[in-house]
Amino acid sequence: MDALFNSAAKKGCVCIGLDVDPQYVPPSAAASLSPAESVLKYNLALIEATADVCACYKVQIAYYEALGLDGLKTYSKTLKAIREAGSLSIADVKRGDIAETAARYAEGHFSGDFAADFVTLSPYMGMDSLEPWMAAAKKDGRGAFVLMRTSNKGMRDFQRQELKEGGRLYNLVGRRLSELAVKEQAGCGYGIFGAVAGCTEREEAAEIRRTYKNLFFLIPGYGAQGAAADDAALFINKDGGGGVVNASRSIIKAWQNNGAKDMDVSGAALEARKAAIKMRDEIKEAVGRKKA
Amino acid sequence: MDALFNSAAKKGCVCIGLDVDPQYVPPSAAASLSPAESVLKYNLALIEATADVCACYKVQIAYYEALGLDGLKTYSKTLKAIREAGSLSIADVKRGDIAETAARYAEGHFSGDFAADFVTLSPYMGMDSLEPWMAAAKKDGRGAFVLMRTSNKGMRDFQRQELKEGGRLYNLVGRRLSELAVKEQAGCGYGIFGAVAGCTEREEAAEIRRTYKNLFFLIPGYGAQGAAADDAALFINKDGGGGVVNASRSIIKAWQNNGAKDMDVSGAALEARKAAIKMRDEIKEAVGRKKA
Repeated sequence: MDALFNSAAKKGCVCIGLDVDPQYVPPSAAASLSPAESVLKYNLALIEATADVCACYKVQIAYYEALGLDGLKTYSKTLKAIREAGSLSIADVKRGDIAETAARYAEGHFSGDFAADFVTLSPYMGMDSLEPWMAAAKKDGRGAFVLMRTSNKGMRDFQRQELKEGGRLYNLVGRRLSELAVKEQAGCGYGIFGAVAGCTEREEAAEIRRTYKNLFFLIPGYGAQGAAADDAALFINKDGGGGVVNASRSIIKAWQNNGAKDMDVSGAALEARKAAIKMRDEIKEAVGRKKA
Repeated sequence: MDALFNSAAKKGCVCIGLDVDPQYVPPSAAASLSPAESVLKYNLALIEATADVCACYKVQIAYYEALGLDGLKTYSKTLKAIREAGSLSIADVKRGDIAETAARYAEGHFSGDFAADFVTLSPYMGMDSLEPWMAAAKKDGRGAFVLMRTSNKGMRDFQRQELKEGGRLYNLVGRRLSELAVKEQAGCGYGIFGAVAGCTEREEAAEIRRTYKNLFFLIPGYGAQGAAADDAALFINKDGGGGVVNASRSIIKAWQNNGAKDMDVSGAALEARKAAIKMRDEIKEAVGRKKA
């Protein structure tokens, strides 16, 4: 988690979500390109325009799998561009499978065509489904964020179930991850594996931050999903540590916000940059307003 | 679920898991081919040799993602070969994400390069993460299997947690899926979405089958994972319905079972065919022994 901790401390806590649908690309930039090529063109412009004002990029693989093999070529080139820009990637793959299979996934997403710095994982199959990822992550200074309490409505269905032993399911996931973080600690003091916790629902978010002090969080829910700077700031410490706050549509679709129907690709990327800077500064101010 | 129900009734309940590592391919068949090409060559031989003796194939995408873009080309061609052989595919992708993103995943795995007949899904994010898949599945006569109680040790960590409201987490997942199956029923009487339930742990398996009568199951755990024909038979009804039983290594590595170090590819595929027929017949006999 060290590389991400340092990047967030230096460049701020914004994680830009490259959940780029071909529809989000300005029409003139997409002209005469395939959907997958147009997404790549826009991604490269976005990365060039924002790498110095965000901690990292979260690349949601679903948007690329939707475009088939060509989409995954764009996915691969996007991860490479993030690396070449000196930034960090979180592959939002939410994989979760048993030992043998998990080892294959880890091989696929920590090396080769789809090599990312971090991944997201689903805990449903149990702690043994995380082990091969940990082994691979330790070897290469990588890390993972495990789903704990997500920002969607459906998190009530299972994650928020109260357990007979006390607490909710997401608390148990958090506790197991927190125990793992004691065993597998990065130099920055946080665990090699962090957690995904939405900043929707203020009280729960505050409780999560208080309870799992050694977890670095990937925080969805900001922007298009409804949460504001003060909500996100609940997770961020005054030293800049604590987590990274993801925003996707509010940044990558910023060029459309004033009703624009088209824009050249560098102009659209500049709007994304402005949105990322605004978000970074708003959260920084909100963290400053927090009581010590 | 109709196509799979009919296929299982006609060809037996075996689901062959194409979790094919390059190491499982006979060396002489792999000579002068890339790892991804050798896996494709072996898969095509396996499918040709077994399509009439199994209900379907489960293709574990992790083994293909591990090989990068070339691996996913092999994945795509494998799905196509299954279709051309008149059989059915279960894409073992265990995806699970929120609405917008889930819709992209459904597009990616029910159409285009990665079009499969069925997928596996993870329920951790909640029922809203399944909705876009259901919409897509209904449109095209496809279906999904949602993780309920898996066959690995780690299933104890979260799936088997007792809830304050009574029952275990996997029971709640089963109940929600069973309710969904009432609403979204296939012609065969089972839900459009079934569940993944391991046949390890006999008593629990029997309880699951008794309780969730309208769920068609994808059943891992047979063979290399330790469960036997009588365990698998717990899930299968005398009319041939109830579920499909997956086996991977015990079939696709059957050519190595007598200590063989190499074999030509059609010989290896024939060993897989024999193993599949043996498994099919053993489970059929075990179902016949069950009390009515």
